[in-house]
Amino acid sequence: MYFWNMTRIVLIGTGNLAFYFYEQFKVNKAIDLIQWYGRKIEKIRFAETETKITDQLSELETADLYLICVNDDQIESLSTKIQAKGIVAHCAGAVALDGLKGQPRAAVFYPLQTFSKEHPLQSNDLPFCIETKNPKDQSLLEELAKLLGGIPYKMNGKKRATLHMIAVIANNFGNHLLHLCKRLCSENDLPFEIFQPLIQETYKKALDLGPEHAQTGPAIRNDLNSIQNHLDLLSDEHIKKLYINLTTSIQKIHEQSQLQNSSESN
Amino acid sequence: MYFWNMTRIVLIGTGNLAFYFYEQFKVNKAIDLIQWYGRKIEKIRFAETETKITDQLSELETADLYLICVNDDQIESLSTKIQAKGIVAHCAGAVALDGLKGQPRAAVFYPLQTFSKEHPLQSNDLPFCIETKNPKDQSLLEELAKLLGGIPYKMNGKKRATLHMIAVIANNFGNHLLHLCKRLCSENDLPFEIFQPLIQETYKKALDLGPEHAQTGPAIRNDLNSIQNHLDLLSDEHIKKLYINLTTSIQKIHEQSQLQNSSESN
Repeated sequence: MYFWNMTRIVLIGTGNLAFYFYEQFKVNKAIDLIQWYGRKIEKIRFAETETKITDQLSELETADLYLICVNDDQIESLSTKIQAKGIVAHCAGAVALDGLKGQPRAAVFYPLQTFSKEHPLQSNDLPFCIETKNPKDQSLLEELAKLLGGIPYKMNGKKRATLHMIAVIANNFGNHLLHLCKRLCSENDLPFEIFQPLIQETYKKALDLGPEHAQTGPAIRNDLNSIQNHLDLLSDEHIKKLYINLTTSIQKIHEQSQLQNSSESN
Repeated sequence: MYFWNMTRIVLIGTGNLAFYFYEQFKVNKAIDLIQWYGRKIEKIRFAETETKITDQLSELETADLYLICVNDDQIESLSTKIQAKGIVAHCAGAVALDGLKGQPRAAVFYPLQTFSKEHPLQSNDLPFCIETKNPKDQSLLEELAKLLGGIPYKMNGKKRATLHMIAVIANNFGNHLLHLCKRLCSENDLPFEIFQPLIQETYKKALDLGPEHAQTGPAIRNDLNSIQNHLDLLSDEHIKKLYINLTTSIQKIHEQSQLQNSSESN
C-alpha cells in the first residue's frame, strides 16, 4: 500500500517554488492538492477553480503534508502558527530542521534547483534533499520526490547548508559572470549572442569531462602578456579586481592539483 | 564562380584547434586540405593516408590559404618563415593582424569557441571573427566560415581583443567556478553530480531570459545571515575572498542597474 494514494497536501507560499509545485501537483494524479495558502491571496486567485485557496493560517485544512515555500526568514514564525498532525516540511536549503518550531513531524524537502515563473523547468531528475525529525517520514518524502520525477537524497542540515553554499557559487556566481559579460558586450558594442555557442560548450564540457580537465586560457598558462592586455581593456576597477582574483584562484587550484598528482605518483 | 571550388589549404599546427579543422576539412568536399604541417610530426602521422604531412616550413606547398593554429607566442616567428602568395591567416583572439610579419595577405580567422580533442564540438553556428589586410580577402574567408557551418563576423583587432577578454570571463572563469564547486563537493563528501541539473538550468536560463533577469540568492537579497553562514563553511581563505568579491560585485551591478532604471523612468 502506498502512502501517496491518500496523500492530501496543503501548499504554503506564492513564490517561484510554490508555483512550480502547484503546476506539478495539478497534473499528478497520485497527489491531491487540497488547499493553497498565500498571504497575498490575489496572486493565487487564478487557481480557485482547481483547489481551495486561503490567506488565513487558522483555516488550514487537515492534511498529510504541509509544504512551506516561503522566504527563509518567514519559516520560523509561520511554523509556530500551524496546528498539524501531518508532516510540516520547509523547502529551504539554508534553514535548519529545527527552524520549524513545535512540529513533531518537522521535515525538510529541499529541491536543488533555480525556479522562476518565466522559465519553466523542462528537465526531470530534480534532486530533493530530505531530512525528517520522525525517521518514518523519510521514506514518505522520498516517495513524493520520486512521484515528482526527482531523485531523493537523505541529507542532514550541515551537509545541506554546504550544498546550498556550493549552489550559490555554481548558480548565483555563474550567472553573475555572464551578467558581467553581457555588460561588457554592451559597453563595447559587441553582440552578447556571439557568446552563446561558447557558453553552451563551456558548461557541457565541464559536466562531460569534469571542470578540472577543461581549463584553458591565460591564467592556467600563466600568460602574463594576455592577462595584462585584458586588465588594460577593463575600465571598471571592481571588475579588474575580480579578474585578478579569479586568475589567481585558477593558478592556486592548478598548483594544488599538480602537487597532489606528483605526491600520488611518488 | 566560387573561390572555394579551387581552394587549397595548408594547415599549420597540431593543437586542439588544428585537429578540429582537420576533421572538418576531411569531410567537406568543397575544401581541399593539401598539406598539414606540425613541428612534432608524430602527432599527425595518422593523417598521412589522407593528406601530405611535413615538419619543414621550407617544404610547404603552394596554397590559397595557410591557416596558422599555433600558440600565440609562436605566430610571429612562424609567419616570417612562410613564403606565400596566398592568404596567411592566424586563428588567435589575442594576437593583432600585424603579428603576421611580411605577409601582404595577412588575415585573422578566429573561431570564438573552446576546443579539445576529448570533447568534439557538436553544434554548428560557430562564430568566426575575420580581419584581413587585403579587403578582397574578407569575403573569401567569410565564405570559408559559412562552408564550415559557421557565422562570419567582420571585426578589427581592438574589438577582437575585447571579445577575447570577455571569452576568458565566460569560459575560463565560468569553468573555474565549477572546478571550485567540485573541489568543495569532494571535501564535504557530496556528489558533484547532484549539481548537474542546477548547472544546466543556470546557463539555459541566463541565455533564455538574460543573466540580468536571472539573478537570485543571498547577494542580491543582501541576506547577510546566509552570506555569513556560507563564509563560516569555507575554510580556504582564498575561496572566502573570492566569495566576498563576487557577492560585492553582484550587489554593485544590481545597484547600478537600479540607478539606471530609476533615471530612465524619471
